[in-house]
Amino acid sequence: MSGELFLREIGEQPAALRALLASEDEVAGVAREIARRPRLVRLVGHGSSDNAASYAVYAFGLLPGWSAIRDSISLSVYYGADLPYRDSVVVALSQSGRTPDVVSYVEVARRRGALTIALTNDASSPLAEASELVVQLRAGEEQAVAATKSYTNELAALALLAAHAAGRGQEVAEALRVVADLAEEALPGLAREVRRLAEPLAFVGRMVVAGRGLEYATAREVALKLKETCRVAAEALTATDLAHGPVAALDELFPLWAIASDDEMLPSVKTAVARARESGALVVASGSAADQIEGAAYVLTTPRVPLSVLSPLLSVLPGQLFASVLAQAKGLDPDRPAGLTKVTLAS
Amino acid sequence: MSGELFLREIGEQPAALRALLASEDEVAGVAREIARRPRLVRLVGHGSSDNAASYAVYAFGLLPGWSAIRDSISLSVYYGADLPYRDSVVVALSQSGRTPDVVSYVEVARRRGALTIALTNDASSPLAEASELVVQLRAGEEQAVAATKSYTNELAALALLAAHAAGRGQEVAEALRVVADLAEEALPGLAREVRRLAEPLAFVGRMVVAGRGLEYATAREVALKLKETCRVAAEALTATDLAHGPVAALDELFPLWAIASDDEMLPSVKTAVARARESGALVVASGSAADQIEGAAYVLTTPRVPLSVLSPLLSVLPGQLFASVLAQAKGLDPDRPAGLTKVTLAS
Repeated sequence: MSGELFLREIGEQPAALRALLASEDEVAGVAREIARRPRLVRLVGHGSSDNAASYAVYAFGLLPGWSAIRDSISLSVYYGADLPYRDSVVVALSQSGRTPDVVSYVEVARRRGALTIALTNDASSPLAEASELVVQLRAGEEQAVAATKSYTNELAALALLAAHAAGRGQEVAEALRVVADLAEEALPGLAREVRRLAEPLAFVGRMVVAGRGLEYATAREVALKLKETCRVAAEALTATDLAHGPVAALDELFPLWAIASDDEMLPSVKTAVARARESGALVVASGSAADQIEGAAYVLTTPRVPLSVLSPLLSVLPGQLFASVLAQAKGLDPDRPAGLTKVTLAS
Repeated sequence: MSGELFLREIGEQPAALRALLASEDEVAGVAREIARRPRLVRLVGHGSSDNAASYAVYAFGLLPGWSAIRDSISLSVYYGADLPYRDSVVVALSQSGRTPDVVSYVEVARRRGALTIALTNDASSPLAEASELVVQLRAGEEQAVAATKSYTNELAALALLAAHAAGRGQEVAEALRVVADLAEEALPGLAREVRRLAEPLAFVGRMVVAGRGLEYATAREVALKLKETCRVAAEALTATDLAHGPVAALDELFPLWAIASDDEMLPSVKTAVARARESGALVVASGSAADQIEGAAYVLTTPRVPLSVLSPLLSVLPGQLFASVLAQAKGLDPDRPAGLTKVTLAS
């Protein structure tokens, strides 16, 4: 069946998360190495891995209070900029471990003195070999082209690294166990609810997905799923960037998907939604505070997590499931989107 | 006339650039202060100012070899993360100097020990008052809601700061004088050329604008102009991110605008265009190497700059001019897009 792999792998996320947690000692060991270094964390990755890097900026900022950046690969690899890598920890993200310019970045940064860590599903990949330390994602083989369980395991591995660096590893690992259970309980209901959206949104060709703070990563990941599996021109924007120009483009055929979690950024998301509603945009709200978004035509509420820094692990589920049903409604195969391969070798 | 202000201000960019260069001593003085600090540059801004911050990552990386990041405002202002600001120089960008959460960010970072610098058109604005040092953009009053000359003067001011920090202030100032002349010579011809695109693209509702490295800022700025003035769902992507999923969505009605400058990233842009062409996408190419993009339906070549780090000052011109004519073709007023105001007070 078309889309079978994608849907199955969405459902495998709780088990994948538990598999990672079972190897938590490995993450703790890597975190001890990181903690010896000065504290600029440079993250690199493409696609879903770059979205996970967006999450890491917040996880490292909120847990140990470190500066973390999504670093430019082109600056180091192609322009040859002479940056102060010696003060840095590099976290390189790639499900396959075979993304060429991510491997090249790690080689450059390591040669220049950075501590390099690979987060990958394949511990014998070129990326793992190029890096000093490896955190294996343990998501199990991912066959659908569009990443799901490798993305959420990247989030979890990053949260664990940041938590151990802050001396809060135990607490976050415990909370992640709860998150795995909550995901397992929520998935069947969410899978039913997203079906209601497939028909009214079947002809939508463009969409904005808005989130802010921790949930900006979720907005980026949902927008990417919609682009790659449904051919929707879905752009992720922070709630504030939406107000700085793009809101002018929204209308009844250009909907807004808002990621609303119950945290410090909720007022900003509410303001952005109110602006979009003035433009006449249809609004879909998902996340633990989705029911607090006024005027949303569709509400996909996810469970509240024990620690708000972990909310992106659950708030991405409705978007993944929606991409699956929308692709079906459009007659597209989300397992094998036209023109894409599982490992992107172009740089 | 509708769109008169926007078009006039596009044409005022060479004069605005010369006005900034006339106050170059001020920039040099600020750069001397920066150079005393440890070397993490934290940039903040929204909309076009955030796009200029994308440029600064490369300008600081390539000229003095410093790490520069587009920092998260939400992490500091809303989540209250305790980051190592003391090691940092903050460069806050706002044409009006009145963007509320940019001002809040500067207040937080300054209180915690960062050296704070405002880049603003209004030296008596709240942002200028909140910051220790000010670089006045001197773009002259900008009346159109969509920024043009304040954006290019932000690029120039950032290039000057980075150049002075690298001991290359004189060289870059000299090159910027040449860029002002080149812009002045090129604008009339480009204004004629973009008119050819307005009719064939009048019904385009979605577009990807791709650039990489230095020109990622240009891609973001052109995409923002198209969203805010033309209501096109235009998303900026790096040439590589395009290949990691979004290329699946392109087709003959979902064109690609490629920013092609003659630098280290050109092969990557060429590869991305070739992938997009396989999806059947119409391709527009602009920039100094636009004529090297195979299969482009429209080519908008800009002059070569004396120093490649300055190419974004010219490569943005075709996109600005195209937004102006496309808005007219669509019957929209780019001076006053529906739902937008010049100063965005929402946060």
